[in-house]
Amino acid sequence: MRIGVLTAGGDCPGLNAVIRSVVHRALTGHDDEVIGFEDGFKGLLEGRFRKLDLDAVSGILARGGTILGSSRLERNRLREACEKSKDMSKDYGIDVLIPIGGEGTLTAARMLADAGMPVVGVPKTIDNDISSTDRTFGFDTAVGVATEAIDRLKTTAESHQRVMVVEVMGRHAGWIALESGMAGGAHGICLPERPFDVDDLVTMVEERFARGKKFAVVCVAEGAHPAEETMDYKKGAIDQFGHERFSGIGNHLAIELEKRLGKEARPVILGHVQRGGTPTAYDRVLATRFGWHAVEAAHRGDFGRMTALRGTDITMVPLAEAVTELKTVPEWRMDEAESVF
Amino acid sequence: MRIGVLTAGGDCPGLNAVIRSVVHRALTGHDDEVIGFEDGFKGLLEGRFRKLDLDAVSGILARGGTILGSSRLERNRLREACEKSKDMSKDYGIDVLIPIGGEGTLTAARMLADAGMPVVGVPKTIDNDISSTDRTFGFDTAVGVATEAIDRLKTTAESHQRVMVVEVMGRHAGWIALESGMAGGAHGICLPERPFDVDDLVTMVEERFARGKKFAVVCVAEGAHPAEETMDYKKGAIDQFGHERFSGIGNHLAIELEKRLGKEARPVILGHVQRGGTPTAYDRVLATRFGWHAVEAAHRGDFGRMTALRGTDITMVPLAEAVTELKTVPEWRMDEAESVF
Amino acid sequence: MRIGVLTAGGDCPGLNAVIRSVVHRALTGHDDEVIGFEDGFKGLLEGRFRKLDLDAVSGILARGGTILGSSRLERNRLREACEKSKDMSKDYGIDVLIPIGGEGTLTAARMLADAGMPVVGVPKTIDNDISSTDRTFGFDTAVGVATEAIDRLKTTAESHQRVMVVEVMGRHAGWIALESGMAGGAHGICLPERPFDVDDLVTMVEERFARGKKFAVVCVAEGAHPAEETMDYKKGAIDQFGHERFSGIGNHLAIELEKRLGKEARPVILGHVQRGGTPTAYDRVLATRFGWHAVEAAHRGDFGRMTALRGTDITMVPLAEAVTELKTVPEWRMDEAESVF
Amino acid sequence: MRIGVLTAGGDCPGLNAVIRSVVHRALTGHDDEVIGFEDGFKGLLEGRFRKLDLDAVSGILARGGTILGSSRLERNRLREACEKSKDMSKDYGIDVLIPIGGEGTLTAARMLADAGMPVVGVPKTIDNDISSTDRTFGFDTAVGVATEAIDRLKTTAESHQRVMVVEVMGRHAGWIALESGMAGGAHGICLPERPFDVDDLVTMVEERFARGKKFAVVCVAEGAHPAEETMDYKKGAIDQFGHERFSGIGNHLAIELEKRLGKEARPVILGHVQRGGTPTAYDRVLATRFGWHAVEAAHRGDFGRMTALRGTDITMVPLAEAVTELKTVPEWRMDEAESVF
Repeated sequence: MRIGVLTAGGDCPGLNAVIRSVVHRALTGHDDEVIGFEDGFKGLLEGRFRKLDLDAVSGILARGGTILGSSRLERNRLREACEKSKDMSKDYGIDVLIPIGGEGTLTAARMLADAGMPVVGVPKTIDNDISSTDRTFGFDTAVGVATEAIDRLKTTAESHQRVMVVEVMGRHAGWIALESGMAGGAHGICLPERPFDVDDLVTMVEERFARGKKFAVVCVAEGAHPAEETMDYKKGAIDQFGHERFSGIGNHLAIELEKRLGKEARPVILGHVQRGGTPTAYDRVLATRFGWHAVEAAHRGDFGRMTALRGTDITMVPLAEAVTELKTVPEWRMDEAESVF
Repeated sequence: MRIGVLTAGGDCPGLNAVIRSVVHRALTGHDDEVIGFEDGFKGLLEGRFRKLDLDAVSGILARGGTILGSSRLERNRLREACEKSKDMSKDYGIDVLIPIGGEGTLTAARMLADAGMPVVGVPKTIDNDISSTDRTFGFDTAVGVATEAIDRLKTTAESHQRVMVVEVMGRHAGWIALESGMAGGAHGICLPERPFDVDDLVTMVEERFARGKKFAVVCVAEGAHPAEETMDYKKGAIDQFGHERFSGIGNHLAIELEKRLGKEARPVILGHVQRGGTPTAYDRVLATRFGWHAVEAAHRGDFGRMTALRGTDITMVPLAEAVTELKTVPEWRMDEAESVF
Repeated sequence: MRIGVLTAGGDCPGLNAVIRSVVHRALTGHDDEVIGFEDGFKGLLEGRFRKLDLDAVSGILARGGTILGSSRLERNRLREACEKSKDMSKDYGIDVLIPIGGEGTLTAARMLADAGMPVVGVPKTIDNDISSTDRTFGFDTAVGVATEAIDRLKTTAESHQRVMVVEVMGRHAGWIALESGMAGGAHGICLPERPFDVDDLVTMVEERFARGKKFAVVCVAEGAHPAEETMDYKKGAIDQFGHERFSGIGNHLAIELEKRLGKEARPVILGHVQRGGTPTAYDRVLATRFGWHAVEAAHRGDFGRMTALRGTDITMVPLAEAVTELKTVPEWRMDEAESVF
Repeated sequence: MRIGVLTAGGDCPGLNAVIRSVVHRALTGHDDEVIGFEDGFKGLLEGRFRKLDLDAVSGILARGGTILGSSRLERNRLREACEKSKDMSKDYGIDVLIPIGGEGTLTAARMLADAGMPVVGVPKTIDNDISSTDRTFGFDTAVGVATEAIDRLKTTAESHQRVMVVEVMGRHAGWIALESGMAGGAHGICLPERPFDVDDLVTMVEERFARGKKFAVVCVAEGAHPAEETMDYKKGAIDQFGHERFSGIGNHLAIELEKRLGKEARPVILGHVQRGGTPTAYDRVLATRFGWHAVEAAHRGDFGRMTALRGTDITMVPLAEAVTELKTVPEWRMDEAESVF
């Protein structure tokens, strides 16, 4: 069997671990050949690929990033890919394509599958917001990085009797904020799933100070937004350069809290450190298992599906099912976190 | 409601996170009172306890160990505890006991429950070998520590063209060896669940050297043992002090490999560093959720059960079910790891 | 002997290690008594202090922050402190005051010393910019945090063929940028000590891309600024809220590079994570030694001086000498870094 | 100029950083050529080398081990090397050899220099025991690893009311034990430089338990030994396999303490994890500076010398001076640590 593999979308710790696992399983468990397309779907369209043998993936298990490069595909080029999909399989002589990527990539994968290309997907997102899988690799690393930051900020906040606002990733789903907030022991957690009430945060901080705990840490997802009546905030409105990214909710919330509380509040925007670097052991294991099962699925002819974690098992779920709905933080998970401040 | 909590058995990162979560939920979600017994069941029997308020659990989320201390209970004292269990509840005025512990503790918990004490258990083991729960807190931290060690040893092995044998915890179940071996990219993994063939390891190393990869790392669980015919090994036979612990399989295997391969082999016995220190974010979240749900179960009168992770949910399972059988590594999990060397 | 100790100024990993060391040495090496003033000089002026025994400092060696709290002293209150300094010594019954702090604190310490209070200073700054000592504790931790961030950002930059601009602390001295830039292998390092030339950065990135290295990381100190003619930048001019801190050089430089290069550039502002959390082993040792020597100096009557690292020795230097001049990065240290991109 | 570089002796975090720095400085600061000999002096003798360009050293700064491999040279082959040294320089066309290594390597380097080969040495040892330099790279990483282990063991010791004996590296000099013991807050530190008194350790533990601190951690260098009259110990006597390494002082001391105290004592032998893996920021900076200065020294014709850290400067010291005497822990450094338990 000849397998093509590519990585697409944003960086995510564990991508290399999947690539390595695909190559290992294909070459040592079967007698396959593996080629890797460069820079995601672009490489697929432009015929840029290289053969991946054991040496090519040596030493990459613990390395962040992706040795294949990545890119985001424009919509019209995707259509082009679909039209050429059958030819492409023939041209490159691949029996299956294993695209590793997030929602966009999996949607593209599904379209390619519908257009006739044999595809086995591997889901990837640090945001953990893909339906049909309990967790995705990269998420644990992101939560770990954010938690370590909160750990560090707490001692600083305490020494200075300050409020710290930590903005973590999560545009549409608040999993990173939820879990790093719980793990770091943040005193407030704001998620995109539910508008937060600034008054509640103010009350929480004041009660803490009254109790003699003269500091607080608030963990806020980049996609969180205040309930309209509690704070004047229009996302991305500020920046005179047209750069939304430099003036997110973290900065605004810190300013607002400082104003209302009359106490120093400082924002920390963690940004891209959350999605780079060496993956945690958890993510390496999950990524390795995904790669192994993707190859097995390919050999079973189990196309149009992607690997998924369900409990302790890796199963295959239809791509169609995976990308219909974003997996957001349910109400009861927020409840669990609520009383733990 | 008045809740008693205790920690028993071996140290495990996340114990403090459970204690904190129980106190937080009980005090802020309900209007409960919490007391903590010192040194496990000993404190319960001897009436040594203290009140736990928010201040008592402040700052312990990220701290290893247990602020309550721990101990192992002798069998005859357990019987004593069961006989007095009803009185004890009355004496201490507790409406429920939340024991946090491993197999022994949960068995004791079940006996106390059978004897009439309202009990909600929280499972704990770095070995991840408790049935009925997908994972236990502490395990992720242990795997993380072991993986970091393997990461470090690989570069040393490579520089010196050596074989490194890393012995990790796991007397009866090989989960730590399996996952840290996969995460660290060990070239051989030996588990208690299946006698390993030394000849296979020798072949693997020789093939690696032949391929130009002049080093290898073998990850071996302390409870692993060789297939009889492949290596002369009698566990614990060596030590002239009657200390089995200083001459485990790691040392023996290194000696054997060195002898057979004619290449330097070095053992590293990770030992207790795997079970101490700050928990990973994953373990803090799981421990926190367990604590939260234990309190909720107590309020529902859901006694004689313990918290368990199933997929992404925390559920309650009967203590009876949890302790009947050790959760060992199934064959198919070993398969996943096998071809990834 | 009765020793008073206080911590003042910004948070710095290792403060607790100094406090612990002072208490340990004073109580076990001598037969002293130690009191700790709360919230820096404020506590000194307001008579807020508590006795510090061995238990009070138990478990704080590895903890970030300061158990005594900190604050910045306003100038007029410092004058007040000086006027009352003799009385205060008498009132509190202290034979010596050990203030642990940065430039401002040491200047205050010197004024108190001049006003007649027996003082032994301990220098503290993550910026490493205090003259007369080779290094200060906290700096190594800050560099470590920044380096880990750069490590992570490199893989992300590489996967996405991006330029990453990391802004680290250092208003007046660029030590953190220099050393984390070197340790992380940044491709450009911008320090406050020397205006940087944006054209050079542009050239460097273009040359890297031409060589096939399609990413770059630039490490910039918050106090760095471009040579006037190379980039339009007025520090702090942007922010409509009057908050300079949300629009530092990191953001501007990223925008500028993106504009000129026509490639994606992203800023990451590390902020307060650099000054909180557990200190590195290096910082714990240095802090512990400073504490030990401060007590010894007090017993020798070696007042008006502060502890300092010179080579491998801890020596005492006059406070006057320590605070006259900021220790900035010399030209030859920049040279060492220059050719290592 | 054509520069030859090699790494010899035991693994040490930072070796790759030196190699990278030599290549960077030589190629971008000058117009040199660099070749790397494989497997230390062996490669030099056998003419096994490869050209090192920028790509060859890309991505190795943060990686442990050495891309060139290492080996220990037998004495008679060293003599051979000396005899052929002039020819070798000619054969390989190198103008200078930069050997990176420990005491043995530097002695060899000196002999080669005496025999007429232009040599600039770079000292390397995790033990920090080379005279003439304040610190060596690799040491900070080793101390960091050991300190993290002690941090973890403390919580376990405390939970179980145990004594933990941590054996760290250091055959002849106790620097790692001293600094990791101080940084980790070990309650006893045993160095090779001064026979330790087991009775003192017993007293220390008993006093701690009496004070209510029911645990203790003892940090012991592998080369430490008890004062004869206080404990029966003959190094390496036990092992029936003739393997001294499996029965070091750590194991013996734990057994002895358990016997005398009647309390559980557990040994942890850290072993090779201390010398592998990614270097700390400190070590990366020091290694990078050493590499830079080695190239500069070569260009100045400053042969027969090695790089050394003195205070904050890198200077050149005669190889002769560097290897005459081991740098052991002086009495006053032990004093600093003594009262800090």
